[in-house]
Amino acid sequence: MIVRPQQHWLRLIFVWHGSVLSKIFSRLFLNFLLSIAVIIMLPWYTSLGIRLTVAPFSILGVAIAIFLGFRNNACYSRYVEARQLWGQLMIASRSLFREVKNTLPDDPALGEFVRLQIAFAHCLRMTLRRQPQADQLAAYLSAEHLRVAMDSSSPANRILLIMGEWLAVRRREGQLSDILFHSLNIRLNDMSIVLAGCERIANTPVPFAYTLILHRTVYLFCIMLPFALVSDLHYMTPFVSVLISYTFISLDTLAEELEEPFGTENNDLPLDAICNAMEIDLLQMNDESVIPTRKLPDKYYQLT
Amino acid sequence: MIVRPQQHWLRLIFVWHGSVLSKIFSRLFLNFLLSIAVIIMLPWYTSLGIRLTVAPFSILGVAIAIFLGFRNNACYSRYVEARQLWGQLMIASRSLFREVKNTLPDDPALGEFVRLQIAFAHCLRMTLRRQPQADQLAAYLSAEHLRVAMDSSSPANRILLIMGEWLAVRRREGQLSDILFHSLNIRLNDMSIVLAGCERIANTPVPFAYTLILHRTVYLFCIMLPFALVSDLHYMTPFVSVLISYTFISLDTLAEELEEPFGTENNDLPLDAICNAMEIDLLQMNDESVIPTRKLPDKYYQLT
Amino acid sequence: MIVRPQQHWLRLIFVWHGSVLSKIFSRLFLNFLLSIAVIIMLPWYTSLGIRLTVAPFSILGVAIAIFLGFRNNACYSRYVEARQLWGQLMIASRSLFREVKNTLPDDPALGEFVRLQIAFAHCLRMTLRRQPQADQLAAYLSAEHLRVAMDSSSPANRILLIMGEWLAVRRREGQLSDILFHSLNIRLNDMSIVLAGCERIANTPVPFAYTLILHRTVYLFCIMLPFALVSDLHYMTPFVSVLISYTFISLDTLAEELEEPFGTENNDLPLDAICNAMEIDLLQMNDESVIPTRKLPDKYYQLT
Amino acid sequence: MIVRPQQHWLRLIFVWHGSVLSKIFSRLFLNFLLSIAVIIMLPWYTSLGIRLTVAPFSILGVAIAIFLGFRNNACYSRYVEARQLWGQLMIASRSLFREVKNTLPDDPALGEFVRLQIAFAHCLRMTLRRQPQADQLAAYLSAEHLRVAMDSSSPANRILLIMGEWLAVRRREGQLSDILFHSLNIRLNDMSIVLAGCERIANTPVPFAYTLILHRTVYLFCIMLPFALVSDLHYMTPFVSVLISYTFISLDTLAEELEEPFGTENNDLPLDAICNAMEIDLLQMNDESVIPTRKLPDKYYQLT
Amino acid sequence: MIVRPQQHWLRLIFVWHGSVLSKIFSRLFLNFLLSIAVIIMLPWYTSLGIRLTVAPFSILGVAIAIFLGFRNNACYSRYVEARQLWGQLMIASRSLFREVKNTLPDDPALGEFVRLQIAFAHCLRMTLRRQPQADQLAAYLSAEHLRVAMDSSSPANRILLIMGEWLAVRRREGQLSDILFHSLNIRLNDMSIVLAGCERIANTPVPFAYTLILHRTVYLFCIMLPFALVSDLHYMTPFVSVLISYTFISLDTLAEELEEPFGTENNDLPLDAICNAMEIDLLQMNDESVIPTRKLPDKYYQLT
Repeated sequence: MIVRPQQHWLRLIFVWHGSVLSKIFSRLFLNFLLSIAVIIMLPWYTSLGIRLTVAPFSILGVAIAIFLGFRNNACYSRYVEARQLWGQLMIASRSLFREVKNTLPDDPALGEFVRLQIAFAHCLRMTLRRQPQADQLAAYLSAEHLRVAMDSSSPANRILLIMGEWLAVRRREGQLSDILFHSLNIRLNDMSIVLAGCERIANTPVPFAYTLILHRTVYLFCIMLPFALVSDLHYMTPFVSVLISYTFISLDTLAEELEEPFGTENNDLPLDAICNAMEIDLLQMNDESVIPTRKLPDKYYQLT
Repeated sequence: MIVRPQQHWLRLIFVWHGSVLSKIFSRLFLNFLLSIAVIIMLPWYTSLGIRLTVAPFSILGVAIAIFLGFRNNACYSRYVEARQLWGQLMIASRSLFREVKNTLPDDPALGEFVRLQIAFAHCLRMTLRRQPQADQLAAYLSAEHLRVAMDSSSPANRILLIMGEWLAVRRREGQLSDILFHSLNIRLNDMSIVLAGCERIANTPVPFAYTLILHRTVYLFCIMLPFALVSDLHYMTPFVSVLISYTFISLDTLAEELEEPFGTENNDLPLDAICNAMEIDLLQMNDESVIPTRKLPDKYYQLT
Repeated sequence: MIVRPQQHWLRLIFVWHGSVLSKIFSRLFLNFLLSIAVIIMLPWYTSLGIRLTVAPFSILGVAIAIFLGFRNNACYSRYVEARQLWGQLMIASRSLFREVKNTLPDDPALGEFVRLQIAFAHCLRMTLRRQPQADQLAAYLSAEHLRVAMDSSSPANRILLIMGEWLAVRRREGQLSDILFHSLNIRLNDMSIVLAGCERIANTPVPFAYTLILHRTVYLFCIMLPFALVSDLHYMTPFVSVLISYTFISLDTLAEELEEPFGTENNDLPLDAICNAMEIDLLQMNDESVIPTRKLPDKYYQLT
Repeated sequence: MIVRPQQHWLRLIFVWHGSVLSKIFSRLFLNFLLSIAVIIMLPWYTSLGIRLTVAPFSILGVAIAIFLGFRNNACYSRYVEARQLWGQLMIASRSLFREVKNTLPDDPALGEFVRLQIAFAHCLRMTLRRQPQADQLAAYLSAEHLRVAMDSSSPANRILLIMGEWLAVRRREGQLSDILFHSLNIRLNDMSIVLAGCERIANTPVPFAYTLILHRTVYLFCIMLPFALVSDLHYMTPFVSVLISYTFISLDTLAEELEEPFGTENNDLPLDAICNAMEIDLLQMNDESVIPTRKLPDKYYQLT
Repeated sequence: MIVRPQQHWLRLIFVWHGSVLSKIFSRLFLNFLLSIAVIIMLPWYTSLGIRLTVAPFSILGVAIAIFLGFRNNACYSRYVEARQLWGQLMIASRSLFREVKNTLPDDPALGEFVRLQIAFAHCLRMTLRRQPQADQLAAYLSAEHLRVAMDSSSPANRILLIMGEWLAVRRREGQLSDILFHSLNIRLNDMSIVLAGCERIANTPVPFAYTLILHRTVYLFCIMLPFALVSDLHYMTPFVSVLISYTFISLDTLAEELEEPFGTENNDLPLDAICNAMEIDLLQMNDESVIPTRKLPDKYYQLT
């Protein structure tokens, strides 16, 4: 995620890093070259009776814009929902630990429980990014818990089960009444909601045919555009063609990036920073002395 | 569902499998032939005083694009909601079993309960896809339960009732307090929400008149398009006409596929894989030794 | 509601029953006649200096399409919400009875309670459709309950109160603990949500001015359209004018139908079928022997 | 709110009362006069080299239509949300009283409690409409309660506090267990949600700049429109210009009305009727003998 | 936030303060100058073969309008959600204190608790606006609590923990049963939801690339517009170009303002006024004698 401070409108026009421009530059350049070729070859192919006008492309352009708007909406919704799920994890984590600490203030194993919660967040993050987890989780989990979690096909879910057992032991020992056990289980369920929600977003893409149809029509539209513009604009064709292509291709490409919000591209969610903030919060709530430092954006305003 | 990994933008233009192109190819080809016929017959019917221009089709095209955008939105919402319901089933199943296991860790019938949960998921999947169920469910249900469920007009709902009885027996025997019984009933209610939600999507289509009006206007529009384009574009008519038709017809067709997300077409939900993942998760939570293998996409990136 | 199975795209173009075409045919025919009159009178009124071109109608057409899209969205949302409310009634009914049966398995009056639930659904349906209720409800309610309910200005709400009393009696007699009474009251509240939600949709239409403004602009647009098209299209005017008018008028008319989802028109909700399914489910859950038959669509695929 | 029964499409074109037409008639008439002036002055100002064409206004018109659609959506959402909040008040009121009556069937002060609930609804209505409240509330509240409520800067919230005290007294006297007290407090919280939700809608308008930007562009567009249309349409300019202006100005004006749904304009919510219905329902639930009559629409189909 | 009363439509066209016009005036003026330069240089650059027509800009304009509508939607949703979160804080605060007061009416430390709640609201406001907090919070918190909160990296969350401890002490002393402690914890969780929700909106902007792409295309579009309009409009170019530019640039700029709803710009949320209202409400509920005065808009209708 890029957290650029507000800037003068004129400077924004020239920003390179963090835009999708770097990704699509080659395609726009091809479009530029094609436009020049079209200008040069114009006399030849009009003599063959081939001609294109802007009017039909106007229908097509508006239709594609509407459908692209729809797809952008769908992809952006995934991004927003993913962010909301991580926000809910923050809520559930804080509330769960607040209730546990207030109810069992003198429990010697509070540190163990808070680490289970932190491990859950890191585990979820690494699962979503398909990164190896065992090394990092070893810092938070006992050897036994780590082994059980890693053996499971869904380690984050297993950590939830371990947290439930931690609470169930205290219920059986009489330290937690049924009503408070029920109350804490609601928080665990909230975490389960986040887990399954993130899995859903990661495993179920926007139907592939949407991506395909829009991709195809956008590129065919941009390829045919110079032919349609040239009779009206002549020497200006390359500039207008590239500007229109930029509008369509950049939004198509951005939608593609947002579709998978858990990646590590420019416009993806800063899961590292969120997990880091959660860890700091929970350790401070437990009044621990060693607190990690807060993650900050790099010089490109990038937060991972 | 197709889970295609990211590909070069150029290769995507030529993808055949998994697009709706295979479905609508014949219609586009008809459109191509019609365009050629229109070019050939142009002198004849202009001599009769018949002429069409692009301008009125521009109004019609934009209007259809807007309404098609609306319908796509409605159909995609059904797809997303269906997926969310199955995600909620995952959440409820895990939470229900976590609470049951933590509360009754030594109950000898935990295996029976976990199989009731798995049976519920499979039963819902097969109900939605209108597949025969008795054989598959026999692997999870006792003969008595299977008979009762199959006798009901809504087997999945009956399985929920059986799960409720399983819990109620333990409440009457004093192993579950009223508060924990209430807590577990909330999870059963969550599963009831999923059941009725899926039934709603499967039984209540988008109002038929929407499908009809858009279908009709899209096809009439595509049929009249070559007549309108020919005076401007002449030899290029077939190519532009097919491109515009492709944009409209493919989105109309895709909306139709997404409207029924529980089918087994290319862009439908992978209910088999979701049930399989749920089964693995629940069995691992019960620390069982025999776990089914995970379902993976086939060579066309297809997951059912 | 029409539950038409998937059909060949070509056949759909000619469907008559279930479309709004039957409703608006006379208006489209008037438009056709007007177009012919316009062609005939063209020389006369151009000699008076009256002329219309397509360009301004393009602005108007797109604006109306956008606003019509907005209104369709608003009306369709009402339809979807209404359907979801009835889905929630299904959920609440099943969960309520499941909990009651599991908690009080030997209560001799379970049959009475299940009939109160069924009466609630039928009563809500008939209230929404403004049908007389006493006769039908007599099949489910005792004479005393029927009298009290019919005396109330909101019979469905009164039935909820009676259900609450049924449960409260058991609480006072010690068969239901406070926590389970609370749990069951949540389900009654869910039914209250459905009741007030349906009343809201039935009593609060989309602001009348929306209907009015769009109605007026759509019809004025369609009336002026032939004048604008005739100079470009001449003999083709009637066909193009009717096609464009069909697109706009049919969507305006369909929005009007969906605005009131509880009616008995082609595209309204099948409340009879939903109540019937609910009745079957609840009676089967109570293991009763006499179960009504399931309602099926008629030969026009129509379900009421 | 206007509750007009369905009418023939032709008659709707001529409806005057209840449309926004009465409000904007003078503006449309000015537009008409301007168009005539533009026709008359055409030769003079074209000789000065001033000319306008439809094409740029097409871009502007579509852009304004899209943004107007967005603003209409935002304002209509406020209207819908406001209506939903009052629906939730209906739900919470009925459920609260149902639970109170079922739990404390013999309490002699039930009549006092039901009047507290009715007072809350009326108080909220009058707060939102900035009407004096003391006289009307005196019919429902004891002198002491009325004084306390009127002294508060948020009387409705104070009435909620009094209801909470009513319940808390019964808890302290042992008539309500903690669990039922908790259950009833959830209903009070539901009413608090309605209260704060309505305050939010009433106090936080749609950002003023939206209103301003759209207002400005809509009127500047309508003023410049006749100049752009005149060269194409000549004598028809006034009619087409007024039709297009009507479409844009009426939707802008309607959005403005819906933005403040608690007013007493034609398209605002019928809070009087809703409060009246709620009062009848609650009194009937308490089996009282004196019930107010139901409010009905006046001869203009208007409900306040 | 600007709370302008309704005004005559004609006066609204000339409003300066509170519009975004003051912000973008220089850009529009540049556009005006550019248009004049374009008129003057027209003969020169047409002689070079450079020409632009409106048609391609029509495609571009509509596409940008659609995408701008999408971005406005996304930014306005953030604004609405932010306002809803503060509304939820109002709800949770009132309900929490109502329950606490009703349950513990004679607790001598009620004043301390109500100040903890007020401190939470002010702390959240100042955190979101990145203002120094210690001085203001000292008015509500004890020295010890202030120190602990300020030491935390998330002071508002720490205050929630302190509130939880306040309640937990009373539970351990037997004044609060487990069920009521659970009930009050739900309210603390509601406040936690508000906290994390606001943090999310403040820390996660709309993906930077959206802002960038739209910014860029809007400005390039406005720069090229005069070249496209001049051949049609000649002397009228500056006026039409500025009007179209105003429509696009003002909405782009407003979206940017709404994206960060917690700032102190014209169209941001009035957090000061909301906190002030909350403080008055809570102190009045505790029947305190010293109540702050209500914050009112200044002479520019501005509320901060």
